[in-house]
Amino acid sequence: MQYDLIIIGSGPGGYVAAIRASQLGMKTAIIEKAEVGGICLNWGCIPTKALLKSVQVFEYAQHAAEYGIEISGGVKPNIKKIVERSRGVAAGMSKGVDYLLKKNKIDIIQGFGKLAAKNTVEVSADSKEKQTVTAKNIILATGARSRVLPSMPIDGKKIIGYRQALVPENCPKSMVVVGSGAIGSELAYFYNAMGTQVTLVEYLPNIVPLEDEDVSAQLSRSFRKAGIKIMTGASTESVDTSGDLCKVRIQSKKGTETVECEVVLSAVGISANIEGIGLEELGIEVECGKIKVDKAYRTNVEGIYAIGDIINTQALAHVASAEAIACVEKLAGLDVKPINYNNIPGCTYTTPEIASVGYTEKAAIEKGYEVKVGKFPYTASGKANAAGARDGFVKLALDAKTDEVLGAHFIGANVTEMIGGIVMARNKGIKGVDIIKSIFPHPTMSEAIMEAATAAYGEVVHL
Amino acid sequence: MQYDLIIIGSGPGGYVAAIRASQLGMKTAIIEKAEVGGICLNWGCIPTKALLKSVQVFEYAQHAAEYGIEISGGVKPNIKKIVERSRGVAAGMSKGVDYLLKKNKIDIIQGFGKLAAKNTVEVSADSKEKQTVTAKNIILATGARSRVLPSMPIDGKKIIGYRQALVPENCPKSMVVVGSGAIGSELAYFYNAMGTQVTLVEYLPNIVPLEDEDVSAQLSRSFRKAGIKIMTGASTESVDTSGDLCKVRIQSKKGTETVECEVVLSAVGISANIEGIGLEELGIEVECGKIKVDKAYRTNVEGIYAIGDIINTQALAHVASAEAIACVEKLAGLDVKPINYNNIPGCTYTTPEIASVGYTEKAAIEKGYEVKVGKFPYTASGKANAAGARDGFVKLALDAKTDEVLGAHFIGANVTEMIGGIVMARNKGIKGVDIIKSIFPHPTMSEAIMEAATAAYGEVVHL
Repeated sequence: MQYDLIIIGSGPGGYVAAIRASQLGMKTAIIEKAEVGGICLNWGCIPTKALLKSVQVFEYAQHAAEYGIEISGGVKPNIKKIVERSRGVAAGMSKGVDYLLKKNKIDIIQGFGKLAAKNTVEVSADSKEKQTVTAKNIILATGARSRVLPSMPIDGKKIIGYRQALVPENCPKSMVVVGSGAIGSELAYFYNAMGTQVTLVEYLPNIVPLEDEDVSAQLSRSFRKAGIKIMTGASTESVDTSGDLCKVRIQSKKGTETVECEVVLSAVGISANIEGIGLEELGIEVECGKIKVDKAYRTNVEGIYAIGDIINTQALAHVASAEAIACVEKLAGLDVKPINYNNIPGCTYTTPEIASVGYTEKAAIEKGYEVKVGKFPYTASGKANAAGARDGFVKLALDAKTDEVLGAHFIGANVTEMIGGIVMARNKGIKGVDIIKSIFPHPTMSEAIMEAATAAYGEVVHL
Repeated sequence: MQYDLIIIGSGPGGYVAAIRASQLGMKTAIIEKAEVGGICLNWGCIPTKALLKSVQVFEYAQHAAEYGIEISGGVKPNIKKIVERSRGVAAGMSKGVDYLLKKNKIDIIQGFGKLAAKNTVEVSADSKEKQTVTAKNIILATGARSRVLPSMPIDGKKIIGYRQALVPENCPKSMVVVGSGAIGSELAYFYNAMGTQVTLVEYLPNIVPLEDEDVSAQLSRSFRKAGIKIMTGASTESVDTSGDLCKVRIQSKKGTETVECEVVLSAVGISANIEGIGLEELGIEVECGKIKVDKAYRTNVEGIYAIGDIINTQALAHVASAEAIACVEKLAGLDVKPINYNNIPGCTYTTPEIASVGYTEKAAIEKGYEVKVGKFPYTASGKANAAGARDGFVKLALDAKTDEVLGAHFIGANVTEMIGGIVMARNKGIKGVDIIKSIFPHPTMSEAIMEAATAAYGEVVHL
């Protein structure tokens, strides 16, 4: 079969590319070795959000009395049912993507895709003979997997990755989570809420180390209040799994200490899936474990493109989808504006939630900006008080010279739904004064955005 | 005492005006006859949100099993504690405003303020002698109260207004709510969730009649599913309170019917508080029950201004606050851009929530626009599925010629936190294509905004 476009990988990069290509008239095939929808739908964004929703409900039930709701008897999470629900949500979304692909007349080829020549992909599946498909253009969207450190080889039982962490049979009594990025922090929060004694270990000086330092500090406070033990500036030297409990040797400024736990969760980042897909054979350039592409996502080999976690841009589902659309629209000859990688929001779905976009205060200063900061705490928000969600704040980093919004750093309830507005507004060049003069609905937590901007100018009303 | 500015009324119009005036160097006094913070803080926005949070927790507890959380024993709302919490939140916010006023060195004068002359206000309080204060400028910000229809005189027991509805001693077995604006709909939702059999009666053809028709239809479906009985195009002719139960005579196309209930809640809009404050004496012009002002909120009498619910603009807390700031900044000689009253968001905090801004589809068509509609349902949102909140959608009304965002109409979980982004972006002239090219974080409900824009252009991926 001859296609206009073949895509290897059906995650949020691949399936979005396929659907957009089909809309633009390309005969398209997509190759997937596992579940349609990729990691994001099946083992990432979606099932984690389902698990986190269950613990949110669990926490509401535990604190129901504070809201005037009386529960006679006990409240207890059923891990089997929580996981079942999460798997059901993921399966439903995966089926949805399968339906969308079929509706758009995209051929789904199950198996492992490997570049065999410039326009040719070889697909191998366990049970079947190798199949060869050709296309004018090929997009690589093979995504990523957990990075594995030599000190913590994942055995799936005592040392686990996010996959095992999403489908526990039981919640362990104790867990060391190594790595406090979004995945590590969300799972640390989940297991702690479920009753596991969690120690969160971060190599860098702050947890959620990509976030603004104030945000990291707030999450630390909230996590500690919730009972999570945090060790920062701490490297995990080794894990001894020979006994009943794991012995995790952790080195920090204070020296070396050994933490015992039932399970170690390794969440130390991701590795791009670039092995065995024919890169070497075709001479496709790779740099620091990522495929090199130009601004149109072209590799150095004509007709072969790469998007998503396998290239050197933020490894986020929405980035992969945006790159998919930009890449395919360019292929179709549309006029495509390059993605502004400084306007990509990032979210962490802990309680409190984190959402941010642009430069942190520190990064902006390092870039040479004179920074004017505005901050508004949830303690002063009427809606946050009414909701019983007083942990958090909205912080804006403005350019003192131009009033441009250099960065927005939010932590608190609902902030993940608020940051998209900043993205839209920044795309239109919004400034601090424009935020001040935008009328937000009362009472909402989003008002804190406007209040933060007024705080930067000494005009804040509610502080 | 001679002031630069006296403000009558300490609601979200008045207290914000006072604080901003003080920031700008004016010696300011504020006159309040009841609680500092006005209706919004004490008897409106804030306490309702607290009540609604309690029923949200109640509903999570009732549906906990769906999320894998097991509750042995019963779940039951304690109305006394729910009201106590709500009052506590309101009192806390009121105390906060009191603190802010004092911090800003604003004199708070307790009592009923009445214009005595151009620059003079007479304040009468029960226990004290009349006091006279003078100022260069006076802002009237006396707000509004429940409108009372002759067919439904509020007796506070069988026929109640929002005030009584916020502090019930018991939840009645049955209730007829007359009027389905934000207040009526929120309270109908609250009482239904608490176990009251609620009938919601709306005179106009749709509930939440100011909203886009699709939004009204979705809320109707959600309300009916929750067990609320809805009667639209129905006028309440009379209420007979002589027996044990109220007999509410309701006329609709189907004829006249009598609905029996324990309590009738009248939520048929508001009346501006313009009586007895000296308007007639000073010859201040009034039109249709509202004070006439120009674009700088000047009445026809020099030095007297009016803002908020007493003038002919949207009767919303955030409008009053924005008018307060605009009015005071203009008084201080700052360069003030007029408020764009077509970019004022409105929210209703039912489940599902409603948030909207700009023209409804119908209004836009009536204005002569050629409208391009984009709509994206929550059923297709990964985050909404993970959250178990599939009721709702995002709808955008775009100008088919200019691609301008004429209106945004959202219903579903978290939408009240999402609409502020549209307000900011519209202030910067955002168009449909700009929304399409804005990268929203995945997985969030806010992605539906981008998807709705793509739907308007036949480029939607997830439908």
